[in-house]
Amino acid sequence: MTLMSAAQPTAVVLLSGGLDSATVLALARERGFAACALSFDYGQRHAHELAAARAQAQAQGTRRHITLPVDLRAFGGSALTDQALVVPKQRTLDELAQQGIPLTYVPARNTVFLSLALAWAETLGSCDIFIGVNALDYSGYPDCRPAFIQAFEAMANLATRAGVEGAQRLRIHAPLQHLSKAEIVREALRLGVDLAHTCSCYDPGPLGQPCGACDACLLRAKGFAEVGCPDPLRQRFGLHQ
Amino acid sequence: MTLMSAAQPTAVVLLSGGLDSATVLALARERGFAACALSFDYGQRHAHELAAARAQAQAQGTRRHITLPVDLRAFGGSALTDQALVVPKQRTLDELAQQGIPLTYVPARNTVFLSLALAWAETLGSCDIFIGVNALDYSGYPDCRPAFIQAFEAMANLATRAGVEGAQRLRIHAPLQHLSKAEIVREALRLGVDLAHTCSCYDPGPLGQPCGACDACLLRAKGFAEVGCPDPLRQRFGLHQ
Repeated sequence: MTLMSAAQPTAVVLLSGGLDSATVLALARERGFAACALSFDYGQRHAHELAAARAQAQAQGTRRHITLPVDLRAFGGSALTDQALVVPKQRTLDELAQQGIPLTYVPARNTVFLSLALAWAETLGSCDIFIGVNALDYSGYPDCRPAFIQAFEAMANLATRAGVEGAQRLRIHAPLQHLSKAEIVREALRLGVDLAHTCSCYDPGPLGQPCGACDACLLRAKGFAEVGCPDPLRQRFGLHQ
Repeated sequence: MTLMSAAQPTAVVLLSGGLDSATVLALARERGFAACALSFDYGQRHAHELAAARAQAQAQGTRRHITLPVDLRAFGGSALTDQALVVPKQRTLDELAQQGIPLTYVPARNTVFLSLALAWAETLGSCDIFIGVNALDYSGYPDCRPAFIQAFEAMANLATRAGVEGAQRLRIHAPLQHLSKAEIVREALRLGVDLAHTCSCYDPGPLGQPCGACDACLLRAKGFAEVGCPDPLRQRFGLHQ
Protein backbone atom coordinates (compact mmCIF):
# COMPACT_ATOMS: atom_id res chain seq x y z
CA MET A 1 0.00 0.00 0.00
CA THR A 2 2.78 2.41 0.95
CA LEU A 3 4.77 1.40 -2.09
CA MET A 4 1.77 1.95 -4.36
CA SER A 5 1.22 5.43 -2.91
CA ALA A 6 4.87 6.34 -3.41
CA ALA A 7 4.72 5.29 -7.05
CA GLN A 8 1.40 7.00 -7.74
CA PRO A 9 1.83 10.28 -9.62
CA THR A 10 -0.01 13.36 -8.39
CA ALA A 11 -2.23 15.54 -10.55
CA VAL A 12 -3.81 18.90 -9.80
CA VAL A 13 -7.48 18.82 -10.84
CA LEU A 14 -9.50 22.02 -11.31
CA LEU A 15 -12.79 21.33 -9.56
CA SER A 16 -15.66 23.79 -9.90
CA GLY A 17 -18.28 21.38 -8.61
CA GLY A 18 -20.12 21.09 -11.93
CA LEU A 19 -20.88 18.00 -13.99
CA ASP A 20 -17.77 18.44 -16.16
CA SER A 21 -15.14 18.91 -13.46
CA ALA A 22 -16.62 16.15 -11.26
CA THR A 23 -16.29 13.80 -14.24
CA VAL A 24 -12.72 14.95 -14.90
CA LEU A 25 -11.79 14.26 -11.28
CA ALA A 26 -13.09 10.69 -11.64
CA LEU A 27 -11.17 10.30 -14.94
CA ALA A 28 -7.91 11.52 -13.35
CA ARG A 29 -8.31 8.95 -10.59
CA GLU A 30 -9.17 6.21 -13.11
CA ARG A 31 -5.96 7.05 -14.98
CA GLY A 32 -3.95 6.33 -11.83
CA PHE A 33 -3.36 9.80 -10.42
CA ALA A 34 -3.62 10.85 -6.80
CA ALA A 35 -5.73 13.98 -7.11
CA CYS A 36 -5.13 17.35 -5.49
CA ALA A 37 -8.32 19.29 -6.19
CA LEU A 38 -8.30 23.06 -6.58
CA SER A 39 -11.42 25.25 -6.37
CA PHE A 40 -11.75 29.02 -6.42
CA ASP A 41 -13.86 31.41 -4.47
CA TYR A 42 -13.68 34.07 -7.18
CA GLY A 43 -16.74 36.09 -6.28
CA GLN A 44 -19.19 33.89 -8.15
CA ARG A 45 -22.72 34.94 -7.24
CA HIS A 46 -23.54 31.83 -5.24
CA ALA A 47 -21.74 29.40 -2.93
CA HIS A 48 -23.58 26.22 -4.04
CA GLU A 49 -20.86 25.54 -6.59
CA LEU A 50 -18.21 25.50 -3.84
CA ALA A 51 -20.37 23.25 -1.64
CA ALA A 52 -20.67 20.83 -4.59
CA ALA A 53 -16.88 20.95 -5.11
CA ARG A 54 -16.31 20.04 -1.45
CA ALA A 55 -18.83 17.19 -1.72
CA GLN A 56 -17.10 15.80 -4.85
CA ALA A 57 -13.61 16.15 -3.38
CA GLN A 58 -14.69 14.24 -0.30
CA ALA A 59 -16.74 11.56 -2.08
CA GLN A 60 -14.01 10.86 -4.66
CA GLY A 61 -11.16 10.58 -2.14
CA THR A 62 -8.86 13.41 -3.20
CA ARG A 63 -5.50 13.65 -1.48
CA ARG A 64 -6.04 17.33 -0.75
CA HIS A 65 -8.59 20.01 -1.63
CA ILE A 66 -7.84 23.73 -1.55
CA THR A 67 -10.46 26.43 -2.10
CA LEU A 68 -8.47 29.54 -2.91
CA PRO A 69 -10.02 33.02 -2.67
CA VAL A 70 -9.25 35.12 -5.79
CA ASP A 71 -11.62 38.02 -6.02
CA LEU A 72 -12.18 38.55 -9.74
CA ARG A 73 -14.98 40.99 -8.84
CA ALA A 74 -12.19 43.54 -8.32
CA PHE A 75 -12.02 43.72 -12.13
CA GLY A 76 -15.79 43.55 -12.83
CA GLY A 77 -17.24 42.65 -16.21
CA SER A 78 -19.19 39.36 -16.03
CA ALA A 79 -22.74 38.29 -15.21
CA LEU A 80 -21.22 35.46 -13.13
CA THR A 81 -19.47 37.85 -10.74
CA ASP A 82 -21.22 41.20 -11.15
CA GLN A 83 -24.56 41.42 -9.33
CA ALA A 84 -25.63 44.26 -11.64
CA LEU A 85 -25.60 42.06 -14.78
CA VAL A 86 -28.47 39.63 -15.40
CA VAL A 87 -27.79 35.97 -16.30
CA PRO A 88 -29.43 35.30 -19.71
CA LYS A 89 -32.35 32.85 -19.50
CA GLN A 90 -34.66 30.80 -21.71
CA ARG A 91 -32.55 30.99 -24.84
CA THR A 92 -32.97 28.28 -27.45
CA LEU A 93 -30.08 25.96 -28.29
CA ASP A 94 -29.96 27.60 -31.73
CA GLU A 95 -29.55 31.01 -30.12
CA LEU A 96 -26.81 29.55 -27.94
CA ALA A 97 -24.99 28.08 -30.93
CA GLN A 98 -25.15 31.36 -32.86
CA GLN A 99 -24.26 33.79 -30.11
CA GLY A 100 -20.87 35.45 -29.79
CA ILE A 101 -19.17 35.53 -26.42
CA PRO A 102 -21.92 35.52 -23.78
CA LEU A 103 -22.39 37.85 -20.81
CA THR A 104 -21.49 34.98 -18.47
CA TYR A 105 -17.93 34.89 -19.81
CA VAL A 106 -15.50 35.79 -17.01
CA PRO A 107 -12.48 37.48 -18.63
CA ALA A 108 -9.43 35.19 -18.68
CA ARG A 109 -10.93 32.92 -16.02
CA ASN A 110 -9.46 29.64 -17.27
CA THR A 111 -6.07 31.30 -17.75
CA VAL A 112 -6.14 32.48 -14.14
CA PHE A 113 -7.33 29.10 -12.84
CA LEU A 114 -4.76 27.12 -14.87
CA SER A 115 -1.99 29.47 -13.74
CA LEU A 116 -2.80 28.87 -10.11
CA ALA A 117 -3.05 25.13 -10.76
CA LEU A 118 0.41 25.40 -12.33
CA ALA A 119 1.76 27.13 -9.22
CA TRP A 120 0.46 24.33 -7.03
CA ALA A 121 1.58 21.57 -9.41
CA GLU A 122 5.11 22.93 -9.50
CA THR A 123 5.23 23.15 -5.71
CA LEU A 124 4.00 19.54 -5.45
CA GLY A 125 6.46 18.34 -8.11
CA SER A 126 3.47 17.28 -10.22
CA CYS A 127 3.56 17.40 -14.04
CA ASP A 128 -0.15 16.87 -14.65
CA ILE A 129 -3.06 19.30 -14.54
CA PHE A 130 -6.64 18.32 -15.38
CA ILE A 131 -9.32 20.74 -16.56
CA GLY A 132 -12.91 20.08 -17.66
CA VAL A 133 -13.12 22.38 -20.68
CA ASN A 134 -15.26 21.29 -23.54
CA ALA A 135 -14.96 22.48 -27.13
CA LEU A 136 -18.38 21.35 -28.35
CA ASP A 137 -21.34 22.58 -26.25
CA TYR A 138 -18.96 25.23 -24.94
CA SER A 139 -21.13 28.31 -24.68
CA GLY A 140 -18.76 30.41 -26.78
CA TYR A 141 -15.98 30.95 -24.26
CA PRO A 142 -12.65 31.56 -26.02
CA ASP A 143 -10.68 29.91 -23.18
CA CYS A 144 -12.39 26.56 -23.74
CA ARG A 145 -10.89 25.99 -27.20
CA PRO A 146 -8.28 23.27 -27.85
CA ALA A 147 -5.88 25.85 -29.34
CA PHE A 148 -5.96 27.74 -26.05
CA ILE A 149 -5.19 24.61 -24.02
CA GLN A 150 -2.26 23.77 -26.32
CA ALA A 151 -0.88 27.31 -26.06
CA PHE A 152 -1.21 27.24 -22.29
CA GLU A 153 0.71 23.96 -22.12
CA ALA A 154 3.50 25.37 -24.29
CA MET A 155 3.71 28.48 -22.09
CA ALA A 156 3.64 26.40 -18.88
CA ASN A 157 6.67 24.42 -20.03
CA LEU A 158 8.62 27.66 -20.39
CA ALA A 159 7.29 29.22 -17.19
CA THR A 160 8.55 26.64 -14.75
CA ARG A 161 11.46 24.48 -13.65
CA ALA A 162 10.32 21.97 -16.27
CA GLY A 163 11.54 24.28 -19.02
CA VAL A 164 14.88 25.05 -17.37
CA GLU A 165 15.96 21.81 -15.88
CA GLY A 166 14.84 19.50 -18.67
CA ALA A 167 12.53 17.69 -16.28
CA GLN A 168 9.41 15.85 -17.32
CA ARG A 169 7.10 17.92 -19.51
CA LEU A 170 4.05 19.48 -17.91
CA ARG A 171 0.82 18.28 -19.45
CA ILE A 172 -2.57 19.97 -19.44
CA HIS A 173 -5.15 17.20 -19.68
CA ALA A 174 -8.54 18.22 -21.05
CA PRO A 175 -10.20 14.81 -21.44
CA LEU A 176 -13.68 16.22 -22.16
CA GLN A 177 -12.43 18.52 -24.86
CA HIS A 178 -14.00 16.68 -27.77
CA LEU A 179 -16.99 15.10 -26.03
CA SER A 180 -20.61 16.19 -26.35
CA LYS A 181 -22.59 16.89 -23.19
CA ALA A 182 -24.33 13.52 -23.66
CA GLU A 183 -20.98 11.74 -23.86
CA ILE A 184 -19.86 13.50 -20.67
CA VAL A 185 -23.03 12.37 -18.89
CA ARG A 186 -22.32 8.80 -20.06
CA GLU A 187 -18.73 8.98 -18.74
CA ALA A 188 -19.98 10.34 -15.40
CA LEU A 189 -22.51 7.51 -15.09
CA ARG A 190 -19.91 4.90 -16.07
CA LEU A 191 -17.51 6.23 -13.42
CA GLY A 192 -20.19 6.35 -10.73
CA VAL A 193 -19.95 10.12 -10.15
CA ASP A 194 -22.60 11.31 -7.69
CA LEU A 195 -24.31 13.73 -10.08
CA ALA A 196 -27.00 14.59 -7.52
CA HIS A 197 -24.30 16.60 -5.74
CA THR A 198 -22.95 18.69 -8.60
CA CYS A 199 -23.89 22.25 -9.52
CA SER A 200 -23.87 23.51 -13.11
CA CYS A 201 -26.47 26.30 -12.87
CA TYR A 202 -25.41 29.96 -13.21
CA ASP A 203 -28.29 31.16 -11.04
CA PRO A 204 -29.52 28.46 -8.61
CA GLY A 205 -32.29 28.87 -6.04
CA PRO A 206 -31.64 29.38 -2.33
CA LEU A 207 -31.17 25.64 -1.66
CA GLY A 208 -28.98 25.14 -4.73
CA GLN A 209 -31.79 23.90 -6.99
CA PRO A 210 -31.01 24.49 -10.71
CA CYS A 211 -33.00 27.29 -12.39
CA GLY A 212 -33.52 25.16 -15.49
CA ALA A 213 -33.37 28.18 -17.77
CA CYS A 214 -29.78 29.51 -17.94
CA ASP A 215 -27.38 28.39 -20.69
CA ALA A 216 -25.63 25.88 -18.38
CA CYS A 217 -28.95 24.29 -17.35
CA LEU A 218 -30.05 24.08 -21.00
CA LEU A 219 -26.83 22.34 -22.08
CA ARG A 220 -26.96 19.94 -19.14
CA ALA A 221 -30.63 19.09 -19.88
CA LYS A 222 -29.73 18.48 -23.54
CA GLY A 223 -27.03 16.02 -22.42
CA PHE A 224 -29.33 14.03 -20.16
CA ALA A 225 -32.13 14.07 -22.76
CA GLU A 226 -29.81 12.60 -25.41
CA VAL A 227 -28.67 9.87 -23.02
CA GLY A 228 -32.33 9.22 -22.16
CA CYS A 229 -31.69 9.31 -18.42
CA PRO A 230 -33.13 11.58 -15.73
CA ASP A 231 -30.77 14.10 -14.07
CA PRO A 232 -30.17 12.94 -10.46
CA LEU A 233 -29.70 16.60 -9.42
CA ARG A 234 -33.21 17.51 -10.59
CA GLN A 235 -34.56 14.32 -8.97
CA ARG A 236 -32.94 15.35 -5.68
CA PHE A 237 -34.94 18.58 -5.71
CA GLY A 238 -38.14 16.93 -7.02
CA LEU A 239 -38.02 18.96 -10.25
CA HIS A 240 -39.55 17.73 -13.51
CA GLN A 241 -37.02 16.48 -16.07
CA MET B 1 -8.31 67.49 -22.18
CA THR B 2 -11.37 65.25 -22.39
CA LEU B 3 -10.60 64.41 -25.99
CA MET B 4 -7.00 63.55 -25.15
CA SER B 5 -8.12 61.25 -22.34
CA ALA B 6 -10.59 59.49 -24.60
CA ALA B 7 -7.91 58.89 -27.21
CA GLN B 8 -5.32 57.71 -24.72
CA PRO B 9 -4.98 53.92 -24.67
CA THR B 10 -4.99 52.13 -21.31
CA ALA B 11 -2.34 49.66 -20.19
CA VAL B 12 -2.28 47.36 -17.19
CA VAL B 13 1.11 47.63 -15.47
CA LEU B 14 2.31 45.01 -12.99
CA LEU B 15 3.71 47.01 -10.08
CA SER B 16 5.59 45.23 -7.30
CA GLY B 17 7.10 48.41 -5.90
CA GLY B 18 10.67 47.49 -6.85
CA LEU B 19 13.16 49.41 -9.00
CA ASP B 20 12.20 47.47 -12.14
CA SER B 21 8.41 47.80 -12.01
CA ALA B 22 8.57 51.46 -10.96
CA THR B 23 10.71 52.11 -14.06
CA VAL B 24 8.31 50.14 -16.27
CA LEU B 25 5.38 52.21 -14.98
CA ALA B 26 7.21 55.40 -15.97
CA LEU B 27 8.03 53.90 -19.40
CA ALA B 28 4.39 52.95 -20.00
CA ARG B 29 3.33 56.52 -19.24
CA GLU B 30 6.12 57.93 -21.45
CA ARG B 31 4.83 55.76 -24.31
CA GLY B 32 1.43 57.44 -24.03
CA PHE B 33 -0.56 54.95 -21.98
CA ALA B 34 -2.91 55.72 -19.12
CA ALA B 35 -1.72 53.22 -16.53
CA CYS B 36 -3.86 50.91 -14.41
CA ALA B 37 -1.39 49.48 -11.89
CA LEU B 38 -1.84 46.00 -10.42
CA SER B 39 -0.09 44.78 -7.28
CA PHE B 40 -0.50 41.52 -5.38
CA ASP B 41 -0.67 40.71 -1.74
CA TYR B 42 0.48 37.13 -2.29
CA GLY B 43 1.74 36.34 1.18
CA GLN B 44 5.18 37.88 0.65
CA ARG B 45 6.98 38.02 3.99
CA HIS B 46 6.85 41.78 4.31
CA ALA B 47 4.47 44.62 3.43
CA HIS B 48 7.13 47.23 2.52
CA GLU B 49 6.92 46.15 -1.11
CA LEU B 50 3.19 46.95 -1.19
CA ALA B 51 3.75 50.32 0.52
CA ALA B 52 6.34 51.15 -2.16
CA ALA B 53 3.88 50.11 -4.88
CA ARG B 54 1.24 52.45 -3.46
CA ALA B 55 3.77 55.29 -3.26
CA GLN B 56 4.80 54.75 -6.91
CA ALA B 57 1.21 54.46 -8.14
CA GLN B 58 0.35 57.73 -6.43
CA ALA B 59 3.52 59.64 -7.39
CA GLN B 60 3.31 58.60 -11.05
CA GLY B 61 -0.39 59.42 -11.50
CA THR B 62 -1.90 56.06 -12.38
CA ARG B 63 -5.54 56.01 -13.40
CA ARG B 64 -6.27 53.23 -10.94
CA HIS B 65 -4.30 50.96 -8.60
CA ILE B 66 -5.60 47.61 -7.36
CA THR B 67 -3.79 45.50 -4.77
CA LEU B 68 -5.32 42.05 -5.16
CA PRO B 69 -4.98 39.42 -2.42
CA VAL B 70 -3.87 36.03 -3.87
CA ASP B 71 -2.52 33.83 -1.14
CA LEU B 72 0.22 31.79 -2.80
CA ARG B 73 1.23 30.56 0.68
CA ALA B 74 -1.64 28.08 0.33
CA PHE B 75 0.70 26.15 -2.00
CA GLY B 76 3.95 26.70 -0.04
CA GLY B 77 7.37 26.23 -1.56
CA SER B 78 9.32 29.53 -1.65
CA ALA B 79 11.56 31.49 0.67
CA LEU B 80 9.60 34.61 -0.35
CA THR B 81 6.33 33.29 1.06
CA ASP B 82 7.26 30.51 3.48
CA GLN B 83 8.48 31.73 6.86
CA ALA B 84 10.26 28.41 7.44
CA LEU B 85 12.69 28.92 4.52
CA VAL B 86 15.65 31.29 4.90
CA VAL B 87 16.42 33.95 2.26
CA PRO B 88 19.98 33.30 0.97
CA LYS B 89 22.44 36.06 1.89
CA GLN B 90 25.95 37.26 1.09
CA ARG B 91 26.40 35.28 -2.09
CA THR B 92 28.89 36.53 -4.62
CA LEU B 93 27.76 37.65 -8.07
CA ASP B 94 29.62 34.64 -9.49
CA GLU B 95 27.64 32.32 -7.24
CA LEU B 96 24.48 34.08 -8.36
CA ALA B 97 25.37 33.67 -12.03
CA GLN B 98 26.15 29.98 -11.61
CA GLN B 99 23.26 28.95 -9.43
CA GLY B 100 20.25 27.04 -10.72
CA ILE B 101 16.79 28.18 -9.75
CA PRO B 102 17.08 29.85 -6.33
CA LEU B 103 15.07 29.24 -3.17
CA THR B 104 13.42 32.64 -3.62
CA TYR B 105 11.70 31.46 -6.81
CA VAL B 106 7.93 31.50 -6.28
CA PRO B 107 6.45 28.75 -8.49
CA ALA B 108 4.67 30.15 -11.55
CA ARG B 109 4.44 33.62 -9.99
CA ASN B 110 4.77 35.65 -13.18
CA THR B 111 2.29 33.35 -14.93
CA VAL B 112 -0.23 33.97 -12.15
CA PHE B 113 0.42 37.73 -12.14
CA LEU B 114 0.21 38.07 -15.93
CA SER B 115 -2.99 36.01 -15.99
CA LEU B 116 -4.64 38.34 -13.51
CA ALA B 117 -3.37 41.35 -15.46
CA LEU B 118 -4.92 39.76 -18.55
CA ALA B 119 -8.27 39.41 -16.75
CA TRP B 120 -8.22 43.09 -15.84
CA ALA B 121 -6.99 44.21 -19.27
CA GLU B 122 -9.77 42.33 -21.01
CA THR B 123 -12.37 43.84 -18.70
CA LEU B 124 -10.98 47.32 -19.37
CA GLY B 125 -10.83 46.74 -23.12
CA SER B 126 -7.06 47.23 -22.93
CA CYS B 127 -4.67 45.38 -25.26
CA ASP B 128 -1.44 46.26 -23.46
CA ILE B 129 0.18 44.73 -20.39
CA PHE B 130 3.54 45.86 -19.00
CA ILE B 131 5.83 43.70 -16.86
CA GLY B 132 9.30 44.44 -15.49
CA VAL B 133 11.01 41.12 -16.15
CA ASN B 134 14.65 41.16 -16.98
CA ALA B 135 16.55 38.44 -18.80
CA LEU B 136 20.06 39.51 -17.82
CA ASP B 137 20.58 39.99 -14.06
CA TYR B 138 17.49 37.82 -13.64
CA SER B 139 18.40 35.65 -10.65
CA GLY B 140 17.67 32.42 -12.52
CA TYR B 141 13.88 32.54 -12.57
CA PRO B 142 12.46 30.60 -15.54
CA ASP B 143 9.47 32.95 -15.84
CA CYS B 144 11.71 35.95 -16.60
CA ARG B 145 12.99 34.62 -19.93
CA PRO B 146 11.98 36.19 -23.26
CA ALA B 147 10.73 32.82 -24.55
CA PHE B 148 8.29 32.68 -21.65
CA ILE B 149 6.97 36.18 -22.35
CA GLN B 150 6.46 35.34 -26.03
CA ALA B 151 4.64 32.12 -25.18
CA PHE B 152 2.43 33.95 -22.70
CA GLU B 153 1.51 36.54 -25.34
CA ALA B 154 0.61 33.81 -27.85
CA MET B 155 -1.53 32.06 -25.24
CA ALA B 156 -3.21 35.33 -24.18
CA ASN B 157 -4.32 35.98 -27.75
CA LEU B 158 -6.11 32.63 -27.79
CA ALA B 159 -7.52 32.95 -24.27
CA THR B 160 -9.57 36.08 -24.79
CA ARG B 161 -12.03 37.93 -26.98
CA ALA B 162 -9.03 39.14 -28.99
CA GLY B 163 -8.57 35.66 -30.42
CA VAL B 164 -12.23 35.11 -31.23
CA GLU B 165 -13.41 38.43 -32.52
CA GLY B 166 -10.35 39.40 -34.52
CA ALA B 167 -9.85 42.47 -32.37
CA GLN B 168 -6.53 44.19 -31.79
CA ARG B 169 -3.79 41.81 -30.67
CA LEU B 170 -2.87 41.74 -27.00
CA ARG B 171 0.72 42.69 -26.36
CA ILE B 172 2.89 41.83 -23.38
CA HIS B 173 5.46 44.62 -23.10
CA ALA B 174 8.64 43.74 -21.24
CA PRO B 175 10.75 46.85 -21.94
CA LEU B 176 13.51 45.93 -19.45
CA GLN B 177 13.94 42.47 -20.90
CA HIS B 178 17.32 43.04 -22.47
CA LEU B 179 18.68 45.77 -20.17
CA SER B 180 21.34 45.32 -17.51
CA LYS B 181 20.61 46.51 -13.99
CA ALA B 182 22.82 49.56 -14.66
CA GLU B 183 20.81 50.41 -17.79
CA ILE B 184 17.59 50.11 -15.78
CA VAL B 185 18.95 52.49 -13.14
CA ARG B 186 19.83 54.95 -15.92
CA GLU B 187 16.33 54.73 -17.38
CA ALA B 188 14.81 55.28 -13.93
CA LEU B 189 16.97 58.36 -13.37
CA ARG B 190 16.17 59.71 -16.85
CA LEU B 191 12.44 59.30 -16.19
CA GLY B 192 12.63 60.91 -12.76
CA VAL B 193 11.40 57.85 -10.86
CA ASP B 194 11.52 58.41 -7.08
CA LEU B 195 13.90 55.52 -6.33
CA ALA B 196 14.03 56.42 -2.62
CA HIS B 197 10.54 54.98 -2.39
CA THR B 198 11.02 51.62 -4.06
CA CYS B 199 11.65 48.26 -2.39
CA SER B 200 13.75 45.55 -4.03
CA CYS B 201 14.98 43.69 -0.92
CA TYR B 202 13.77 40.15 -0.15
CA ASP B 203 14.24 40.63 3.60
CA PRO B 204 14.06 44.30 4.65
CA GLY B 205 14.35 45.62 8.20
CA PRO B 206 11.35 46.74 10.26
CA LEU B 207 11.27 50.22 8.67
CA GLY B 208 11.74 48.87 5.14
CA GLN B 209 15.50 49.43 5.05
CA PRO B 210 17.26 47.10 2.55
CA CYS B 211 19.31 44.26 4.10
CA GLY B 212 22.10 44.82 1.57
CA ALA B 213 22.93 41.11 1.44
CA CYS B 214 20.15 39.22 -0.38
CA ASP B 215 20.36 38.50 -4.12
CA ALA B 216 18.05 41.41 -4.98
CA CYS B 217 20.10 43.88 -2.93
CA LEU B 218 23.33 42.61 -4.52
CA LEU B 219 21.99 43.05 -8.06
CA ARG B 220 20.62 46.51 -7.28
CA ALA B 221 23.94 47.57 -5.72
CA LYS B 222 25.79 46.31 -8.79
CA GLY B 223 23.54 48.45 -11.01
CA PHE B 224 24.11 51.64 -9.04
CA ALA B 225 27.85 50.93 -8.78
CA GLU B 226 28.15 50.59 -12.57
CA VAL B 227 26.24 53.84 -13.09
CA GLY B 228 28.47 55.46 -10.47
CA CYS B 229 25.56 56.95 -8.57
CA PRO B 230 24.45 56.45 -4.96
CA ASP B 231 21.17 54.58 -4.36
CA PRO B 232 18.58 57.11 -3.10
CA LEU B 233 16.88 54.31 -1.12
CA ARG B 234 20.07 53.63 0.89
CA GLN B 235 20.57 57.40 1.30
CA ARG B 236 17.05 57.70 2.70
CA PHE B 237 17.95 55.24 5.45
CA GLY B 238 21.44 56.69 6.00
CA LEU B 239 23.09 53.43 4.89
CA HIS B 240 26.58 53.28 3.36
CA GLN B 241 26.63 52.79 -0.43
